[in-house]
Amino acid sequence: MTQPKELVVLHPAPQSTERIFSPETLRRLHEEFEVLDLDGHPDAERQLDLALPRAFAVVGQPDLPAGRIERAVRLRALCNVEGNFFPNVDYAACADRGVRVLGCGPAYAQAVAEYSLGLALDLARSITREDRAFRAGTEGYTFAANSDSILLRGAEIGFIGFGNLGRALHELLVPFRAVVRVYDPWLPDSYLEEAGVTPASLDEVLEGSQVLFVLATITEESERLLSEARLRRLRPGTRLVLVSRAAVADFTALVELVREGRFVAALDVWPEEPVPAEHPARAVEGLVLSAHRAGGIPAAFEKIGEMVLDDLLQIRAGLPPVRMQVAARELVHRYRSRPVTTAAGARNP
Amino acid sequence: MTQPKELVVLHPAPQSTERIFSPETLRRLHEEFEVLDLDGHPDAERQLDLALPRAFAVVGQPDLPAGRIERAVRLRALCNVEGNFFPNVDYAACADRGVRVLGCGPAYAQAVAEYSLGLALDLARSITREDRAFRAGTEGYTFAANSDSILLRGAEIGFIGFGNLGRALHELLVPFRAVVRVYDPWLPDSYLEEAGVTPASLDEVLEGSQVLFVLATITEESERLLSEARLRRLRPGTRLVLVSRAAVADFTALVELVREGRFVAALDVWPEEPVPAEHPARAVEGLVLSAHRAGGIPAAFEKIGEMVLDDLLQIRAGLPPVRMQVAARELVHRYRSRPVTTAAGARNP
Amino acid sequence: MTQPKELVVLHPAPQSTERIFSPETLRRLHEEFEVLDLDGHPDAERQLDLALPRAFAVVGQPDLPAGRIERAVRLRALCNVEGNFFPNVDYAACADRGVRVLGCGPAYAQAVAEYSLGLALDLARSITREDRAFRAGTEGYTFAANSDSILLRGAEIGFIGFGNLGRALHELLVPFRAVVRVYDPWLPDSYLEEAGVTPASLDEVLEGSQVLFVLATITEESERLLSEARLRRLRPGTRLVLVSRAAVADFTALVELVREGRFVAALDVWPEEPVPAEHPARAVEGLVLSAHRAGGIPAAFEKIGEMVLDDLLQIRAGLPPVRMQVAARELVHRYRSRPVTTAAGARNP
Amino acid sequence: MTQPKELVVLHPAPQSTERIFSPETLRRLHEEFEVLDLDGHPDAERQLDLALPRAFAVVGQPDLPAGRIERAVRLRALCNVEGNFFPNVDYAACADRGVRVLGCGPAYAQAVAEYSLGLALDLARSITREDRAFRAGTEGYTFAANSDSILLRGAEIGFIGFGNLGRALHELLVPFRAVVRVYDPWLPDSYLEEAGVTPASLDEVLEGSQVLFVLATITEESERLLSEARLRRLRPGTRLVLVSRAAVADFTALVELVREGRFVAALDVWPEEPVPAEHPARAVEGLVLSAHRAGGIPAAFEKIGEMVLDDLLQIRAGLPPVRMQVAARELVHRYRSRPVTTAAGARNP
Repeated sequence: MTQPKELVVLHPAPQSTERIFSPETLRRLHEEFEVLDLDGHPDAERQLDLALPRAFAVVGQPDLPAGRIERAVRLRALCNVEGNFFPNVDYAACADRGVRVLGCGPAYAQAVAEYSLGLALDLARSITREDRAFRAGTEGYTFAANSDSILLRGAEIGFIGFGNLGRALHELLVPFRAVVRVYDPWLPDSYLEEAGVTPASLDEVLEGSQVLFVLATITEESERLLSEARLRRLRPGTRLVLVSRAAVADFTALVELVREGRFVAALDVWPEEPVPAEHPARAVEGLVLSAHRAGGIPAAFEKIGEMVLDDLLQIRAGLPPVRMQVAARELVHRYRSRPVTTAAGARNP
Repeated sequence: MTQPKELVVLHPAPQSTERIFSPETLRRLHEEFEVLDLDGHPDAERQLDLALPRAFAVVGQPDLPAGRIERAVRLRALCNVEGNFFPNVDYAACADRGVRVLGCGPAYAQAVAEYSLGLALDLARSITREDRAFRAGTEGYTFAANSDSILLRGAEIGFIGFGNLGRALHELLVPFRAVVRVYDPWLPDSYLEEAGVTPASLDEVLEGSQVLFVLATITEESERLLSEARLRRLRPGTRLVLVSRAAVADFTALVELVREGRFVAALDVWPEEPVPAEHPARAVEGLVLSAHRAGGIPAAFEKIGEMVLDDLLQIRAGLPPVRMQVAARELVHRYRSRPVTTAAGARNP
Repeated sequence: MTQPKELVVLHPAPQSTERIFSPETLRRLHEEFEVLDLDGHPDAERQLDLALPRAFAVVGQPDLPAGRIERAVRLRALCNVEGNFFPNVDYAACADRGVRVLGCGPAYAQAVAEYSLGLALDLARSITREDRAFRAGTEGYTFAANSDSILLRGAEIGFIGFGNLGRALHELLVPFRAVVRVYDPWLPDSYLEEAGVTPASLDEVLEGSQVLFVLATITEESERLLSEARLRRLRPGTRLVLVSRAAVADFTALVELVREGRFVAALDVWPEEPVPAEHPARAVEGLVLSAHRAGGIPAAFEKIGEMVLDDLLQIRAGLPPVRMQVAARELVHRYRSRPVTTAAGARNP
Repeated sequence: MTQPKELVVLHPAPQSTERIFSPETLRRLHEEFEVLDLDGHPDAERQLDLALPRAFAVVGQPDLPAGRIERAVRLRALCNVEGNFFPNVDYAACADRGVRVLGCGPAYAQAVAEYSLGLALDLARSITREDRAFRAGTEGYTFAANSDSILLRGAEIGFIGFGNLGRALHELLVPFRAVVRVYDPWLPDSYLEEAGVTPASLDEVLEGSQVLFVLATITEESERLLSEARLRRLRPGTRLVLVSRAAVADFTALVELVREGRFVAALDVWPEEPVPAEHPARAVEGLVLSAHRAGGIPAAFEKIGEMVLDDLLQIRAGLPPVRMQVAARELVHRYRSRPVTTAAGARNP
């Protein structure tokens, strides 16, 4: 075709072009589109302004107030590559002008689901605890160190939240034939039943779970959902896995209750990252400690690039996007998952 | 019924009656049968001799040479509750007299399968390694500590051995949509294909796996199957999970190759247990260390008792046993899985 | 709450309020909303005009040109209850004003999938053919009438189209461990691979299938997709199941090729319905004849009402709809599936 | 190897060598073993007598009283290729001498399971009934002929019997997420629960099923299990699928109750085959009529040969058979499933 290629602007910070596009995906992107890569560009803002009137898609999450959206007369897609939607974009303006706002949450879902299952199996069988004991020379053999070990098969499992993560994790749990009860106030019971899980109240999930997965994103309603009072209602010995956002829980209470031995927990998200050196959690035996590692693995990052490319091709062909997640107009402004601030000021995925 | 109850002799050492029978199962056993419990009995051997002519079933693995079998004229079942068949029983005599020899392997299969998956996810995502780093204050956040993390989804997975453990583990792996290649010289390809796995040679499994599960029992053929030369053919970075018997591998070479960083491994079985205090494995970063904990959890032990009771009721009703595993006449003499010797001289499950 | 209820206008023709709302669902709809039911109303158009400025949702598919949409200032949802989107609605105007346009396709998917599987098993094993022979006294026993019977297990199966129907049918086929090849020009290969099927060209699907499911909707591109030339490329003995739209195929050629014995087919949709009394298909042995019965069963109709109610509650709560299908702006104008005309002039689902 | 090959005697009647061995399987059998094929041999009995002292295996079911077994000093396997065990073999003598008695039931299971599901879907949606109506010009369109159509998804399903057929059928039903209740007096509840079905009494299965699969073999206990009184307790409108043995039911009552319209049924087995020309069932609208076609399809027959070959190789290598079914010593004498007598006097599979 002699027709000019559509323009795709890459502005992926805090991601990087290299991390989310494999060489092969990037090659194909350049083959199909004109690509303006502003990753690390010293004059990115001005370049963006110049490019917007011609842009077919923006990959990343630069500031896009109504004014910029209005000037982006050919814009068809805004591909978020972080996993959170920030209020620096005028989503209503995008919707009004038919700009698809797409999220990359599905790219992380499998990685987080596998990690969450790994953490749950660790807590069910005390894998890290006994590895540490072995290194200290205090390991117990066979049943000696197994008195609190449980099977996941047939276990009573609770989910708080049933979005991308919950669905991906549930799929992995199917062969365990567990009873999976889900609390998610954004979904009707019928939806959960069709998905093969049991709708439940927050109380039922808190009090009725041997293994409790906290998968909820942060909104005004979910902040501190797991207050100290609620955490005290967990069954003794509950295995709690927290992989979504630290602000969902009263974190100080959570760590203290584990220290007291009321239940055990695996924590992948923290109120402040890096975690202060003297944080009491570092010495609590009943915790599995993890530094925001659930989703950000190479396979997940590269999948973002593939999804972006696939959906840009869909949209260019007049077809709906099918791999990224269409941001629901109703929800995009609700997410409050402010990224944690790292020492370097970078936003974490 | 006024008919006298059949006699069941319990001789469960090194198991104990209490461990394998929950109070409820034991109550039902006494309700259905006359029970002679020789667990810990000071005069067990003589009591057994006295009881054999009347015994309907023996639960455990006392010495049963041909002479004793001959005198056990009413014996219909010998229920092994350990997981290994030792040569202290004349299995041919049992077969000739129609005595069902039953194993409890299936009771452990789910526990071992879940643990194996937990170990594999740990190695795929470095869960224990990063937990230790976190406690040492050297944790890396997000992608900083994730560069070698992989998904199990779609991974190339190898099994050595496809008995009870392999089948139970495969069921858990189905939602990961992995390619599972199996080397098992005791099974025809067609059997493996019907089970949904890919038959493979030992070489293919060694060289083609990102995650390798060693699930083989010990026979003359499988001892030192994983010689140093073969271990050197694993892909760099392979995740190796060993949960069956230490003698399958050249253990010294295995630990050394992990120490050198060629691959990582989770080890649940050891040539000598307890492991000597100064064993070099205790300090190797690339290992997940586990003290023979894969199978012996409370849920597995209690399942043994349930299976024993169910199958004794089946046999008494003139029906075949369906929960324990019928020992194959062809194989029962082949197993060489000498239990490791513990400090206390006890046999481990 | 003393707050007035939102207004929902029911205008379900050619559906009826009674068919799509069970008494219980209708009771709940009235409990939650003010309901104006125009089903069968003699003055429906004028009532609709009067109600639109206050309407929160319209259930059905009345004419909604831009002018009406503009006057419906509070309108948030248009719930299509037929399964086809007709051009009597200005979808672009809906999108611009944030009106959710929702389809009920998922309500039919399970019914069509089960029926399609039933038809395929019928063709694979000649169930109807042999039932007719039995009634005629000419049945053959055991292998006598089984020489052309095949298993679906492990069969080579082709799909043309992979929307709601394809996904639902694929789920039912999973335990058959069949190879499912899919041709769908609206979807990227990656999407199909993630769904667990094999992307394929039209040629591969036509020539490589033992069982071929035609599940495509009608667009300009798909009309007469199955031309006589293409139908002649099916393998001898192919089982063809047609449940989407008759216009996908050169229907005359299809029936004739089956009459000649080149392949067999189950036909649920027809170019003209009712089918003329003298239609040659009525006498062809290799056909399973079905009168547009795949989707319209009581369970599917009642599910429409449940989905409508659930999603109206979602939208009222400021949440996205999750049960009905959000009509893709890119596709809604493409569908050409003109309903067949019945004698009574009614549109069929 | 210069070692002489082991001798395998084929005596497959009423099967034939050609039907159960594909050319490729037969070629491999000859390659691995010395083969004496007595299929259709005019002097088969005497040849068998001559061969027995050297025979490693007999494939088929010739008369094998204790005397013959005793002379067969090298015999290791008796491979039944029919699906029924007849009392013309001294099974106790086989067991005492370590001769493996193997059945081919698993070869038919998939074929019967798929056919049973096809029949159930037919009854759920009236596929054959409406095909006949279409040919008669009396078809009803869309909902007109669908008022009694039901989904299998979520349906209450009952099984009578849970052997090979039940397990294979259950696997196909998993994606329908049905409640499957099973009555099988030969199995403990725990076994059924582990298989993922719900143990139930005969009454619960009769009265609580929308779809009832009769999969029980015939024993003294199961003959006429479905008496008229019990059949009258089925729910109105039950879909009954009978694919095991006609003697399980009071057949006359069954046909009459369907004729009266109390429930519908698909019948694949008959008290007398061929069914008399004037049998009243031939005219009953509520029946799907099938002439003993569920299992005997080419794919099932050829699988028998593959299973025989695989297991003979296993046994020759000192390994247990894994593809055919080891006949349970407890059950082999219980089966009474006398084959129906056909006009030609042949036994049906």
